[in-house]
Formats: sequence, structure tokens, C-alpha cells
Amino acid sequence: MLLLNGKKTAEEIRLELSQKVAERKSKGLKIPHLAAVLVGNDGGSLTYVGAKVKACEEIGYGSSLLRYDESISEEELLQVVYDLNNNPEIDGFIVQLPLPKHIDELKITRAIDPMKDVDGFHPINLGNMVLGLPGFLPATPAGIMELLKRNNIETSGKHCVIVGRSNIVGTPLSIMLSRNTNPGNCTVTLAHSRTQNLEELCASADILVAALGKPGFITKDMVKPGAVVIDVGTTRIDDPSRERGWRLCGDVDFDDVSPLASAMTPVPGGVGPMTIVSLMLNTFRALELNGK
Amino acid sequence: MLLLNGKKTAEEIRLELSQKVAERKSKGLKIPHLAAVLVGNDGGSLTYVGAKVKACEEIGYGSSLLRYDESISEEELLQVVYDLNNNPEIDGFIVQLPLPKHIDELKITRAIDPMKDVDGFHPINLGNMVLGLPGFLPATPAGIMELLKRNNIETSGKHCVIVGRSNIVGTPLSIMLSRNTNPGNCTVTLAHSRTQNLEELCASADILVAALGKPGFITKDMVKPGAVVIDVGTTRIDDPSRERGWRLCGDVDFDDVSPLASAMTPVPGGVGPMTIVSLMLNTFRALELNGK
Repeated sequence: MLLLNGKKTAEEIRLELSQKVAERKSKGLKIPHLAAVLVGNDGGSLTYVGAKVKACEEIGYGSSLLRYDESISEEELLQVVYDLNNNPEIDGFIVQLPLPKHIDELKITRAIDPMKDVDGFHPINLGNMVLGLPGFLPATPAGIMELLKRNNIETSGKHCVIVGRSNIVGTPLSIMLSRNTNPGNCTVTLAHSRTQNLEELCASADILVAALGKPGFITKDMVKPGAVVIDVGTTRIDDPSRERGWRLCGDVDFDDVSPLASAMTPVPGGVGPMTIVSLMLNTFRALELNGK
Repeated sequence: MLLLNGKKTAEEIRLELSQKVAERKSKGLKIPHLAAVLVGNDGGSLTYVGAKVKACEEIGYGSSLLRYDESISEEELLQVVYDLNNNPEIDGFIVQLPLPKHIDELKITRAIDPMKDVDGFHPINLGNMVLGLPGFLPATPAGIMELLKRNNIETSGKHCVIVGRSNIVGTPLSIMLSRNTNPGNCTVTLAHSRTQNLEELCASADILVAALGKPGFITKDMVKPGAVVIDVGTTRIDDPSRERGWRLCGDVDFDDVSPLASAMTPVPGGVGPMTIVSLMLNTFRALELNGK
């Protein structure tokens, strides 16, 4: 079985990006700068944003972490977004979700300049994706595409079953994989909570993507021998044996399924690192797209 | 077999809309006004646009047909779009595609105010569709959804195979049918020219949508007994027995398949009339959304 080692692939990409940054620097050109906006003190959000900022620093990007108390008003947060839109130093930025309940996430997402929307959550970027036009792709599905590409996984004509229809993973990935691109040209089936005969459907997949958020849900009965298995799940489950008290658990039962699969992502170290590196790639593209 | 009579369903909707228009008129409120922009003299485009304008008149909408010579420059056409965007009398408008080669269709489509984009082709409207947010849905897939709804076709949990991944039919319909809505909640497989075992895949569908533009492509071997069959094909084929010299031909071999299907659209008189009536529905919604 080929381990789709997202950690290693992400490292390769980070190395390439750091070389590009050094090259720009040596030419006196602007280096990429990513800003992250974090509201409140949610532990998970803090970890994610911290990892993003750290990744920026490691490859020589500029980075800014803008933290606000959860009492910030919607109007004030909108002003933060407008300021970042207008700040020529910032090439791309993200507003970490979820936001406190008194703030309309959609209003904030739509206020972000689509040309700086490196998370790819703005409706216009999703629409461009549907039309196959240039734009920013959502980080997790874009990371999966990159992982497939760099590991030379053949996708054309393959039957891909995606379990989970979320706006940020399953639905956009289903569109990306069905387009006439490489990777792409899959026959994609998007499955979800209402799907009948899910086991049978999964077992018919050449490429199986689990993005439903149920730890260990996919077992060997649901996998065709030789299938490529992509595990997007990252649920924290209690683990007293770890110092921090928890570990990340994927949607696929790795030990059960890995003997069957031809290629497979681990959790952690599979899709997760690719998501962060997608953000780095998007930020570099933002710099270039904005002609700097 | 239940004939999914789009002509009849479209008539019902037109009647409802004409009653709503009469009601608005009696209250002294603005009536909907659709404008159509046509460049050049293509026979097919002229027929389509003519049918749209006629449909408007029949239900009491205001309508304008703006015709331009195919020598119009991109800049001039953009100005036409801006004028329509700013004209408070016009609630929605369409620019009939295709446009002459010297004009960038995408540039024109993106210049249309998304709030007047009743064709639903603007990237932001497609993005809103992906996110399940309010906006204008592309007319053909929206018409199919309406046809399924008004004929009480059960879709939840059904396996729907869509053949053809175009930007205006197959791809958006795949998203609409897989969302958590009614109609919707289908397990959708989007098939296309690279799909392997297409016959077998089609024969596994509870709902089969043919949108590939190959006359008579779908035969009985590709249809499961009891399936619902939606035929989006509208290819003109020579027919010397008709006065006009051609007839419309669907992607499904109707005579071959209809004895097997539980419900099926004819061509013509199936999806076609629903497409035009979707545009009428979108225009009425545009009027309401813009608070008039």
C-alpha cells in the first residue's frame, strides 16, 4: 500500500515555496503576507490559526495574527475586513470560523475581497470553481487534489465516491474531481446522510473520500480491494494515554482498511497538512494575481 | 407511465404568474419587466429569444428585445449591460449566448448585476447555489426541479445519474439535486465522456437525466425498469416531412425507453417549456428581491 503522506508532500511544497520566496526577496520583490483574524478563545480555532501562522513564518512569508475579544461587534469586525481588503501589504487573509453567534458569518465572508479570499469561501470563488474559471479553491479539497497529483494517482474515468456533502469539503471536491482536468475526470458520486445502500456504494468506489466526521465509520466491508482511500475526518477523541488528553481520529478505520487499499491517507499526517499548505499556495497565487 | 408534461406544467405556472401580475397591477404596483439582448442573426438564438419575449407578453410582463448588429464592439455591449443594470424599469435581463467571437462572453456575463441575472449564469449566483444561499438558479436545472416537484416525484435517497457535465445543466443540477432540499437529497452521480461502464451506471439509476446532446443516445438497455427519465436534449435534426425541415430530438429514444420508465419527459414539450417558465419565475423573484 502506498501511504499518501500529506505531511511529507506538504513539506516538499513548503520547500518549493520557501525557495520562491527567497528568490523574490533576492530580487527585491514583495514577499507574500497572510493575515489571520481570530475572534474569541476557542481552543481548536487557536490551534488551527497558530499552525497557519507558524507555517507562514517557516517558509519566509510575512504573517499577522489579529485577535479580537468575542465581544467584538459585527460592525467592528466588518471594519477589520475592509481594512485588510484595502491594506496593500496583505496579499491574502482568512477569518477563522466559527464566529460568535451575534456575528453573521456569511456577511463577513462576503465582505472579504474575492482577490484576497485565500480560504476560497466567497460565493464568487465557488462560482468560478463551478465554471472552471481562475479563482481561489477551498483549501481542503484543493489540498486533496494536490496530494493526488503529486502522488501520481490516476483519476481519469475512475469512480469516486465522496461521503459527506459539506460546503467546504464534500460538495466542492465533487465538482473539482468531475471537471475535465488532471486530477479530475472522475465519475463522482456524492453520498450523504440520506443515501441508501451506502456500504454497497462505497464498496464500488475506485477512489473513496470520507468526509463525514464520524470516527472509524469506514470499515473494510465498505472498501473495494485496490481502492484509493482519502480520509478527511479529524475528530478529537479522548485519549488519556496522551499528555494532552486527546488524539485525532479519522473517518476510516485505518488498521482495518489499509491492508485492502492500494493507496491511503493516514490521520493525522494526511489531508490535514495539505489543507494548511493549500492556504500557503493560495497566498502565493494571490500575490501573483494581484500583480505584485 | 406518467408523462412529465412540461408544457402543461409550464402553462399552470404561467397562469399563476399572470394572476399575480394582475393582482399587482390592480394594486398599482410595478409589473415585472424582462429585457433580452440579442446580438446578430443566428436563427436558433432568434427563436429562443422570441419565445421568451412572447412568454412575457402572454402573462402580462413588460418585455424589451434589444437587438444589435453582430459588429457591435465589446465596449458598446458592456455599456448596454451597464444601462440595463441601472435602469429601474428592468427587473431582470438576459444576454442570449453565444456571442460573436470578438466579444468575451465571460466579461459580459460578469458585468450583469447579479440581482438582475435571471439566467443565473453569474459566478456569484452559482456560488450561492453551491452554498444553498438565495440567488438565481440557472433556468434549465431550476425548471427540472420544478417539474419534479409539481409532479410529486420522490427524490430523497434516490440514486440520480446525470449524463453530461455542462456548466449550465449537468453540473448545477448535480449540486441542486444533492442538497438537503425537496426536491433534492438524491445520491447524485455525475457522468460524462470519460465515464467508464456508462450503460451499467445508467441502468442503476432511479432517476436518469440525459443532458449530453446526442440524439437518441439513451436506449432501453441503459434504463432500470421503473426509473424516472428526464431528457434535456434538444438537437435539431433534419426532417423533410416537416414544413420547416427539422424537428427537435431528445437524448433518449422515447419509443424504446417509455415502456420501461415510471415517469418520463417528452421532447419537445418536456424540459424545454420549463426552462422558459423558470426565467419568468426568476424575473418575478427579481422584482420582489429588489423590493419593488
